[in-house]
Formats: sequence, structure tokens, C-alpha cells
Amino acid sequence: MSSEPSAFRKKLHTIVFESETPGGKFFDITLLVLILASVTIVSLESVVGLRRHFLPVFQKLEWGFTILFTVEYLIRIYSAPRPLKYIFSFFGIVDLISIIPTYLSIFYVGAQYFLVFRVLRLLRIARIFKLTHFINEGKVLSNAIKASTHKITVFMGTVILLVVIIGSMMYVIEGAASGFTSIPTSIYWAVVTLTTVGYGDIAPATPLGQILASFVMIMGYGIIAVPTGIVTVELSKTEKRMTNTEVCPNCHMEGHLPEASFCYNCGSKLN
Amino acid sequence: MSSEPSAFRKKLHTIVFESETPGGKFFDITLLVLILASVTIVSLESVVGLRRHFLPVFQKLEWGFTILFTVEYLIRIYSAPRPLKYIFSFFGIVDLISIIPTYLSIFYVGAQYFLVFRVLRLLRIARIFKLTHFINEGKVLSNAIKASTHKITVFMGTVILLVVIIGSMMYVIEGAASGFTSIPTSIYWAVVTLTTVGYGDIAPATPLGQILASFVMIMGYGIIAVPTGIVTVELSKTEKRMTNTEVCPNCHMEGHLPEASFCYNCGSKLN
Amino acid sequence: MSSEPSAFRKKLHTIVFESETPGGKFFDITLLVLILASVTIVSLESVVGLRRHFLPVFQKLEWGFTILFTVEYLIRIYSAPRPLKYIFSFFGIVDLISIIPTYLSIFYVGAQYFLVFRVLRLLRIARIFKLTHFINEGKVLSNAIKASTHKITVFMGTVILLVVIIGSMMYVIEGAASGFTSIPTSIYWAVVTLTTVGYGDIAPATPLGQILASFVMIMGYGIIAVPTGIVTVELSKTEKRMTNTEVCPNCHMEGHLPEASFCYNCGSKLN
Amino acid sequence: MSSEPSAFRKKLHTIVFESETPGGKFFDITLLVLILASVTIVSLESVVGLRRHFLPVFQKLEWGFTILFTVEYLIRIYSAPRPLKYIFSFFGIVDLISIIPTYLSIFYVGAQYFLVFRVLRLLRIARIFKLTHFINEGKVLSNAIKASTHKITVFMGTVILLVVIIGSMMYVIEGAASGFTSIPTSIYWAVVTLTTVGYGDIAPATPLGQILASFVMIMGYGIIAVPTGIVTVELSKTEKRMTNTEVCPNCHMEGHLPEASFCYNCGSKLN
Repeated sequence: MSSEPSAFRKKLHTIVFESETPGGKFFDITLLVLILASVTIVSLESVVGLRRHFLPVFQKLEWGFTILFTVEYLIRIYSAPRPLKYIFSFFGIVDLISIIPTYLSIFYVGAQYFLVFRVLRLLRIARIFKLTHFINEGKVLSNAIKASTHKITVFMGTVILLVVIIGSMMYVIEGAASGFTSIPTSIYWAVVTLTTVGYGDIAPATPLGQILASFVMIMGYGIIAVPTGIVTVELSKTEKRMTNTEVCPNCHMEGHLPEASFCYNCGSKLN
Repeated sequence: MSSEPSAFRKKLHTIVFESETPGGKFFDITLLVLILASVTIVSLESVVGLRRHFLPVFQKLEWGFTILFTVEYLIRIYSAPRPLKYIFSFFGIVDLISIIPTYLSIFYVGAQYFLVFRVLRLLRIARIFKLTHFINEGKVLSNAIKASTHKITVFMGTVILLVVIIGSMMYVIEGAASGFTSIPTSIYWAVVTLTTVGYGDIAPATPLGQILASFVMIMGYGIIAVPTGIVTVELSKTEKRMTNTEVCPNCHMEGHLPEASFCYNCGSKLN
Repeated sequence: MSSEPSAFRKKLHTIVFESETPGGKFFDITLLVLILASVTIVSLESVVGLRRHFLPVFQKLEWGFTILFTVEYLIRIYSAPRPLKYIFSFFGIVDLISIIPTYLSIFYVGAQYFLVFRVLRLLRIARIFKLTHFINEGKVLSNAIKASTHKITVFMGTVILLVVIIGSMMYVIEGAASGFTSIPTSIYWAVVTLTTVGYGDIAPATPLGQILASFVMIMGYGIIAVPTGIVTVELSKTEKRMTNTEVCPNCHMEGHLPEASFCYNCGSKLN
Repeated sequence: MSSEPSAFRKKLHTIVFESETPGGKFFDITLLVLILASVTIVSLESVVGLRRHFLPVFQKLEWGFTILFTVEYLIRIYSAPRPLKYIFSFFGIVDLISIIPTYLSIFYVGAQYFLVFRVLRLLRIARIFKLTHFINEGKVLSNAIKASTHKITVFMGTVILLVVIIGSMMYVIEGAASGFTSIPTSIYWAVVTLTTVGYGDIAPATPLGQILASFVMIMGYGIIAVPTGIVTVELSKTEKRMTNTEVCPNCHMEGHLPEASFCYNCGSKLN
């Protein structure tokens, strides 16, 4: 009988993990405000001018937020039907990461800046606004990206091979004088150039280097078409299959073509 | 009876709000020229070399344009069938914003630069050239963008989470020495890098920072595929819906060319 | 009778304007080599180190090329069936522009650099390699771009409105201290940023300026999806219509759908 | 009989060229580790701080790797059924290029940096992980890119004509003062700008130069749509062809889902 959650734990669960009740909704909105406030405080603390004047205030606020979030974390563990499952879930880990940096900052100065990982907690907050529509759109996107993982891996592998080779060639051509001080630095330059970011902290100075760099730029400008094409095609396929939301009455298959009259899996008539 | 607009107000309305009559067309073209001239004057006034020599001329011209546009604004209010509706419409607000900076510049030096918002008035001028075709194209575009709002919001939310986390990590890794003076500045750097803008005013200098930056760049280079895919798929759907939706009366085929008079499948006459 | 071209003029025409005969082909290949050589010479002349040592050589070569191209231009006028039509055609104007800078350089030093416009003459040379396949591909591309002109104009108009407004706001926010010396300069910065070029010669330094700049960058990163979507959709439509190369036997219409059995224009049976 | 490979050569071939047997798999994984290690060593050797302290270690390791790869190369020649075919195959040449730089470095200091071309050997290693799925995806990508070669050549030709003309115009407008020291340098700037890389090592300073640069940037921002459109359309066609090409035996419908067992239109069994 002790394994059966008490009424109190059940009620806590409704407030802390759900947002259908007024209590749950109030809890979630309070949490949203606290997360945004705490991330803002951490960011502002890092600004030298502000830290000089307001450091004690910032530190007190940080400890306040951390204690609140620690209490919340303990309540979540207590009220979860299976505490271990929660602790090792994505959100359980995020919740833990959101509090430990403050405790670590006692020993290591600077650890508190990792508190910005708290923004990840906002992912859960999507629920408050009943953002189911957004969640569906997110699914279309992540399905399309998942479906193109293999193609994108092939593309990324090619890009990495390219930047290693181009970087090494530029190191030999340009040398340390124009900033290409080593092969790793030159590979960094190749990434900066091929992705069309182009900081300009390292730039070729010799004619041969500029000719090779021009080829790299034109290549980078052109091959961006490849991931774009991949995602567009996948998104278009995913979209098509998610428009027909009908489920086969016989075999319960989803993902029929928009014009389908029969189930592609068992041949039963669809409505 | 007083609510019935007088013949004079009606005539004014035709000239000021429409462009079918010669008078209306002349009014609109004059307005187009005045707007472009006034925005050019405001821009030139901001150039130090020109301001030193021609400030009195610029100021006189600005007041001249503002008085003209104020008169026009009052005429619009007078001749609109429902003045309040006009005042609070998009174009009513733009028209007001186009004149107040000059009056504000008496009290606040620099306010006159907001006169460049006058360019927004050009949106109305589209009408002059009977740009209905352009307006339709604009509608296709804005429909496609509207339809993808949810997906783009999800994407933008992900990008914002990413830049906050990446910015904070870079602040801890690089520190103030290479320009990462605070978390907000580092987040700004992350935006500059992820969007492939790459000013180079802040650039990583440590090996670890350059490795993380390389990942950010490749990520930014790759994920641009996502909004592109979203808009392309939506645009393709919107286009399809806005082309020929006719069904052949004989064989029930769809997907005819926009200019088709006969069914491509059975040769029957389309309506 | 004098309007009938002489046999000699006809033969010249075959050599100079066509490339089917061995003579015509030889002429075209010689021309290709001469154009590339002359553009290379003009480019090298602009390099200070080379100009100091080889200026007389460069000038002699330039005059040599110009005299050859002048003779060729006169032969083209002489052998063209309708000389005036040739003179005012696209290639006629390009041919003239390819020779006048050298003559102008007697009066204006530097005019000779416009000789690089000679590269435009290469467009004609496409013919040598019987690049009809390339020309068809070029047509698919230019048709798709033509078909999307209206949409791209709407998009470009929006971009121009945006950069004017953003530029002016940044001028007021940042001011001359961080390089935003005037509204035109700030508009230039807005173009550099929105298009994700990001030179870094002008970069925001104030927190408010960096926040606005971040929005501009994310906007620029996102809206590149719009022209990409437009061109992709048009290209896909153009491709589809250019695969079926059949011409209606009755009304001579082209551009049928790949699956068409009947002409969309007159309803006749296609083969 | 002597042309028949001996049992020993056959066994060697299975180990060195295949990865189905445990021996072959072990060989391939060892090779993968050695290649990554050797490329890392070459990269680290180029870092000044590390070279100063560890040069003898790096050189010994490099010679060690090179001797191992030389032995492997000789074994491959010996065990290949047709040695000459292997030597002149893509991988044969890559294998040779992976060892000669070390020998060359005896005569030319710096030649050893070309050892990074060893990363190309990783292309062969794809086989280890039975990455047939990846290889198929790679084929879809390379087919799509091959099919769009003509269109991309036309596009690249246009881009090259553009940068030559724009570069020359900027040279005349800006001159050496703002970094446009010669036509080739200005063409390099045009590539940097048109591809939206934007280093900022050379940037226009005159109003006219900035206006022209703004046009170039907007053009570069817009025309990236063209290769993207080309690849997307081709990829979409290639994908379609490589999915389910089956036709329903009953109603002759095409376009079934890849996993379909029944026709979506009439419910008949597909083969």
C-alpha cells in the first residue's frame, strides 16, 4: 500500500507537472517569470560596470533563485510517480543542471555563469500556453530533420574533409605572416570562410592565397544549396503525410497520402 | 443629412484617396516625388560635410515638406468618410508619424531624423502604377509567410535558446581578453556568428573558443536550410492553391495550367 | 540590286558571325584567346609592381588588341546584312564598348581599365562549343527568374524600405562615435548586415545598438528564405513545362504538361 | 597458372581490401585509428609552441606512420588482382599521395604538411561500418548535383563575369587608398562580397563605392536563391525516381509510398 502515492503527493504532481488546474497554471507562470528573471540576473552580473556596483545584490538574488529551484526540484522528485525515471529524464537533468552551478560557485569562481542553462527549462513551459499547435509544428520540423540525418551526415563529412584539406593548403601557401600560424588555425579559417561567416581576423594576403580563398568562397556559397535542398525535400514529404490525419480503421496505420482511399498497409477502405 | 458627405468632400476624397481620375493620379505622382525628395533631404542633412554648409536650406525644405504633408493629413481627415477609422488605420498612423518629428525637433535636436519613416508612405503609392499584379504577388508571399508563422516561431525560439547558451559558454571560455566582455556581449557575438554575418569586431582567440566557434558556424550554415525549407514548401502550396483550381467537367482531372482552355487529359472544353 | 550582299560580304558573314565552317570556327577560337589575353593584360597592368616594370609592353599589347578588335568591329558592320541592326544590338554595343576605352585613355588616364568589359564578349563565344545544351539550361534559369520578377521586386522593395528605416534608427542610436557618421552610411551598414555580408568596418558599440543589430541579423538570416523559396517554386514549374517539348499539331502551342494527351489551348490530340 | 593469384595473395586481398571477415574488420579499424592519429600529429606539428618542444617526437611518429602506410601500399599492390588498375584508381593515387610527402620532406622542408591529404583515405573507411545506407544517400546527393551540373556551370559563369566587371568598376571608383590596389585584388573583393563572406580586409570608403557595394551585396543575397533552387528541384526529382516506382497492376496508379503494400487508390495488392 505504501507504493500507492498519497493524496498529497498526487495533488502536488498535478500542480508541479501539469497545468490544467488553476494551481498548476499559476505555478507554471510563476516558474516562467522566475527563470527569465534568474537568467537575466546571471547575464547582468557578467557586465563589469554592473558587477562592480551590484555584486552583493546579484549574489543574494542568485542564491534566492537557486534555493527556490532546489526546493522545486526536491518537490518534483517527491511527487513524481517514479522518481528515478524523472531524475534521469531530459527535464530531470536540465532541472539539476539549473541549480548545481550556484553551489559549485562556492568552490570555483565563474561556475555561476553556467546558470544560463536554465533557459533550457523554458522548453517545458511551452505547455502553459497550450502550445500543442506549436508542438505539432515542431514535430514536423524535427521529423523532417531526422529523416534527412543520413544525407546531412554525408554532407557534413564532406565539409569536414574539405576544411581540413583547404586549411592545410592555405597554411603552406600563406604561412604565419598573414595569420595562418598553424594547421588548426588554418582549418578554423577555412570553416570561417566556407560557411560565409568571414570574420576577417585571418585573411589571405598573397595572390595565390586569395585565388584559393576565392574558390573556397564560391564553393561555400554554392554548396549551401545542398542542406537547403535536403531539408526542403524532406519537409515537403513530411508535410504531405501529416496533412492526412486519418488512421486506418483496420490496422491503425497513420501517414496516408492526401488522396488515399485505401490503406497502403492492409488495403482496407479509408473513410 | 449632415452625415452625408458634401460634393466637395467627395471630390477631395476621389483626388486624395484614389487614383483613377487624372486629378487623383497627378496628386499621387506629386506625393511620390515629394516623399522621395523629403527622405533624401533628411538623409543628406545627416552628412556632416553637407550639414555645415547647407543647414539653413535643409531646415527650410524640411519645414516646407512638413507643412505640405500636414495640410495633406488634415485634408485626408476631412475628406475620409469615417475620419476616426482613417486616423487609426495603418496608413493614418504612418501619415501622422511622417509629420510629427519636425515639430518635435523644435524641442529635441535629432528628432527630425525619424522623418525617414516617411518612406513607409510609399507603400500606398503602389496604387498609382495600378500595381494590382504586384499586390497579388505580395499577397502570395505574405500568405506563405503567415502560414509558416508557427514553424518559424519554433525555429526562432530554438535559435534564441542556442545563442543564449553558446554566448554564455564562450564568455566562460574566452573571457574579456578577446572581446567577450560580458554574457550579453557574448550573446551578441553568437548572433553575429550563427547568422553568418561575422563582423570580426569580436572573434575567439583561444583554441577551445575557435573549436566551439567552428561548430557554431557549421550549425548556422546548416540550419539556414530550415526557414528556407519552410517558406519554400508553404510558397509551393500557396501557389498551387492560387493557380487553376478548375476540375475537368468530363474526366474530373485537376491541375490544369493557368491559361488552359481545354483539359490536357481528355480534350474537353473547360469553363 | 545593290542591296543584295556581294559574295565576298556573304563569305565574311559566315566567318565572322557563324561558326559552322572551319573558317568560322578558327575565327571564333582566335577571338576567344585574344579576349582572354587582353582582359588578363588589362588586369595585370593595374598591379603597381608590374606596371612599374612592364608599362610600355602592356600599352603596346593593349593598342595591338584594340586595333585588331576595331578591324573586327568594322568587318562586322560591313558584313552584317543590316548594319544598323547589328550596331544597336546587345552584342554590337558590347563590341563597341570593348574598343573605345583605349582611344579614350589618350585623353583620360585610367579609362583603359574599362576594357575589362571585353569579358562580356565571351557571352557570344558560347556558340563555338555548340553549347546549345548550356543555352537551354540558361533559358530554364532565365525563364524562372523572369517569372518571379514581380515577387522578387516586391521582396526587394520591402528590403529597401527596411534598410532605410533600420539605417536611420541606428544613426540616432549609435551616432558618429562607432562609425555611423550619417544616415546614408548607416543605410550602407544596414545593407551590409541584412545581407549577412558583415564587413565589420562599421559595427554597433552600444548595448541598444547591438540589440537592434541582433534583430536585423536574425531577420536577414530568416528572410533569405523568401527569394530562395520564390526561385525554387518557379524553377520547379518551368522545369515541368520544359520537359514536354511537343508542339500542338493544330495551334503550334508549346509548354504542355508532361502527362498531357490534348492541347490545353485548342483541345487537339497530341501525339 | 602463374596469373592465378596464390592462396596467400587471395587471403591478403580479403584482409586488406574487404571488411567482411574478422581479420578484414580489424585491419580497417586499425587503419582508421592510424589515419586519424597521423593527421592529428601533422596538424599539431604545425603549431609553433608544440613544434619547439616535441619536434623529434613528431618526426619519429611521422616516419613510423609513413613506413606503416608504405608497407600497406606495397601489400595492396601485391594482393590486388590487377595491380596497375589499383595503382591508377582514385584510392590508389590517394594511398600514394598519403606517403610521398614524408619522403619529399627530406629535400623540401614543409612538404610533410601535405600529409593531411591522408584524410581522403577515410572515404574508403566508410565501408567498415557497413555504411551502405550512407553510401546510397551520398549517391542521391551526387546524382542530384551531377544532374544540375549544366545549370550550375551557367550560374558560375555568370558569377565570374559579374565579379570581373564589378571588381574593375570598384578599382576605378575606389582606388588604392581604401585597399583596392589592383584589378585582381578588386575582383577578390567582389568575390568576398558577392558570396556574403565579407572579411572587411578591403571595404569601400567613398559614397559611390558604398552604393555600388550595396548593389553587389543585395545581388549576392538574392542570387544565392539560384543554386539553391537548382539543387532542390534536382534533389526532389532524384528522390522521386529512387522511391517507389511501382505501378498498381489494377488501376495503373503511380506514386505509392515507399513502404506501401496496397494501392492507395483501389486497394489492390502491390507486388
